[in-house]
Amino acid sequence: MATINSNYDKLGGGYLFPEIGRRVRQFQAEHPGVKLLKLGIGNTTEALTPAVIDGLLAGVERLAHVETYTGYADDSTGETEMKKALQLFYRRFNVSLDLAEIFVSDGAKPDSGNIQSIFGIENVVAVQDPAYPVYVDTNVIAGRSGAFDARTGQYQGIIYMPCTQENGFFPQPPEEKVDLIYLCSPNNPTGAVATKEQLKIWIDYARARQSVIIFDAAYSAFIKDATLPRSIYELDGAKECAIEISSFSKVAGFTGVRLGWAVVPQALVVEGAPAGKVNWLWARRQNTFFNGASNIVQAGGVAALSDAGQKECQGLVDYYMNNARVIREGLQNLDYICYGGVNAPYIWMKTPHGLSSWEFFDLLLHDAHVVGTPGVGFGPSGEGYFRLSAFGHAADIEQAVASIRDHLKRQ
Amino acid sequence: MATINSNYDKLGGGYLFPEIGRRVRQFQAEHPGVKLLKLGIGNTTEALTPAVIDGLLAGVERLAHVETYTGYADDSTGETEMKKALQLFYRRFNVSLDLAEIFVSDGAKPDSGNIQSIFGIENVVAVQDPAYPVYVDTNVIAGRSGAFDARTGQYQGIIYMPCTQENGFFPQPPEEKVDLIYLCSPNNPTGAVATKEQLKIWIDYARARQSVIIFDAAYSAFIKDATLPRSIYELDGAKECAIEISSFSKVAGFTGVRLGWAVVPQALVVEGAPAGKVNWLWARRQNTFFNGASNIVQAGGVAALSDAGQKECQGLVDYYMNNARVIREGLQNLDYICYGGVNAPYIWMKTPHGLSSWEFFDLLLHDAHVVGTPGVGFGPSGEGYFRLSAFGHAADIEQAVASIRDHLKRQ
Repeated sequence: MATINSNYDKLGGGYLFPEIGRRVRQFQAEHPGVKLLKLGIGNTTEALTPAVIDGLLAGVERLAHVETYTGYADDSTGETEMKKALQLFYRRFNVSLDLAEIFVSDGAKPDSGNIQSIFGIENVVAVQDPAYPVYVDTNVIAGRSGAFDARTGQYQGIIYMPCTQENGFFPQPPEEKVDLIYLCSPNNPTGAVATKEQLKIWIDYARARQSVIIFDAAYSAFIKDATLPRSIYELDGAKECAIEISSFSKVAGFTGVRLGWAVVPQALVVEGAPAGKVNWLWARRQNTFFNGASNIVQAGGVAALSDAGQKECQGLVDYYMNNARVIREGLQNLDYICYGGVNAPYIWMKTPHGLSSWEFFDLLLHDAHVVGTPGVGFGPSGEGYFRLSAFGHAADIEQAVASIRDHLKRQ
Repeated sequence: MATINSNYDKLGGGYLFPEIGRRVRQFQAEHPGVKLLKLGIGNTTEALTPAVIDGLLAGVERLAHVETYTGYADDSTGETEMKKALQLFYRRFNVSLDLAEIFVSDGAKPDSGNIQSIFGIENVVAVQDPAYPVYVDTNVIAGRSGAFDARTGQYQGIIYMPCTQENGFFPQPPEEKVDLIYLCSPNNPTGAVATKEQLKIWIDYARARQSVIIFDAAYSAFIKDATLPRSIYELDGAKECAIEISSFSKVAGFTGVRLGWAVVPQALVVEGAPAGKVNWLWARRQNTFFNGASNIVQAGGVAALSDAGQKECQGLVDYYMNNARVIREGLQNLDYICYGGVNAPYIWMKTPHGLSSWEFFDLLLHDAHVVGTPGVGFGPSGEGYFRLSAFGHAADIEQAVASIRDHLKRQ
């Protein structure tokens, strides 16, 4: 008699983005012909760049000829050419990595979901609050939480570290003992970026306690301020305590193409596991549960990391960051309180008039035809906030800001 | 203080294919210039077909233009066009599926590894012995086994169902209570194909006990005999008890391209979970841990399922199945005992002279320069057997058979 993984029954409500999709579809069914301006999911909208397209086409063409065709890679952790390109990429930040420390994957979401599985079920998990829902949900499913408490909006047993105006949306280490710490910088959803000083506090904390930092750097390309770290490994000691996860999704427009990577340093040590063991665990995990990122897609990734590709991708980043500026300045001109959007493609705004996140979501959807993301969907400290994404066509972004302005005038 | 998932320490030895790779690399380092004939991993070697290439190129081209560019899909379970193509594919076997029952993925390996995660840790797992190592390893990592017993070659707590000459390499249900049953037909590694009568026994067993059959049909395209089932859903009652996993890897040459699918019927019921619940669980799992198969690759998959694509893929299947015939007949002419290779791309041969699987592997590698796969790598009942894969260039396959013949003459 088979039984289900009952941890799924603990999950409080649907996954955020399908719920947004459901409300949007319902609105569209009831209001056919209304154009919605979608600043919700953080979905890229601009075409892939020429060098990347050429790389992908070459990747396809290679498979059209028996002389150049390839099937399974030697292992599931990525093609050597792709790993070498990432190794070079890290050298720009003075970060030196072995090829065996780089794991190419089909994206930062799978990696940030799966990484917990190489750690014991008894580890205490700490997350920024608000945070990308995958960190919490995957740990709940794995059994590292108790029940969901609807009153607090928190799962028992998970340590939530509030990110608020007061702490600049970046937390200090908590009083409690924590083992696996998820940090995201530039942050989704708040748009805050950790300074080197802030990260150093965490690295010192983690090394002293043999905790592991899971550092989500998926938005690092959006950092303009040269004093801010684009990789946690820019800081001494990080290789002993941190795994870094990153992605081509936003910087190269690969949200649907699927390519990311994780760095698991050989120097990483945890209780009872010598240096190299965690790296081995992730290799074993990827070779058992995964069969490599698509060879076509890796050809595109190599192209994106070429000099030409990087220049073009910077153009995409600049395009979206101009959108971020338009949103931020537009909302500030309307006297909304906004954070982020300077070194990150997300604007984190305070909802007006004490509206809840979902109330403001429904209001903007119905009245301004703008789709954003309710802050509370990222954790209880997100209540009263709203995330607007800079990913969109510039004209739509401008229209969205204008539509919010018109909505305000009508009130 | 972080700790590791100690279940990884139970794993007995390396994953099979990396170990083969290690021995091959060592041989090549010691014998530079020797050409090895690789019939080991089951890696496709022939170019993708024109319709599929056109589909992939169109998939890339769509991303080159802002008007046709797409990013994230609405959810992670596959594009509607791809699901509709699979729905039509199943209609050929008189199997009718809802789109919501079809989950597009990056391959049968990830699906067959991850599917266990939606079931409780207390489920008893039964596998064919020998079997594809992923079924066992992923359940060991999840914690559904005790220690590895080097004496028996088995993990405690996992039920091994011997597949031998006596039972035609397909097992009867065991005496023990089992909850999750992995069946693979056409079988990797034995090449045996379950008949409708054999599957019916399992479906009756599973329905009577609310067990779940995880049916790996990744090689179904290689079935020539029209009386053999290509999908478990050709049998009445299968939707109430079976999940089917399949792949584009071998039939379309997508081993490196990465595309597969799972079918989780709405009618599937397990203890304490009404119809629809298991389907919901897999959707939630995929939406949380996965972000969809690459949109480029899905465009190739749709092309592979088109009329032109299916005809061309049949050409690939015919090519590899001619290789299978060459291997089977070649080895039989040398008085080796062989199974499979008729409705499956694998030949399962008995090692001669009572050699162990790895002894025969090393002998063939060093003396005939042929790389196969030791049967024992698939489970203890694989000891004394050897798997040869029909995936390879026809000339290499013929050379491999000739090389084995010459090796025999030298003995």
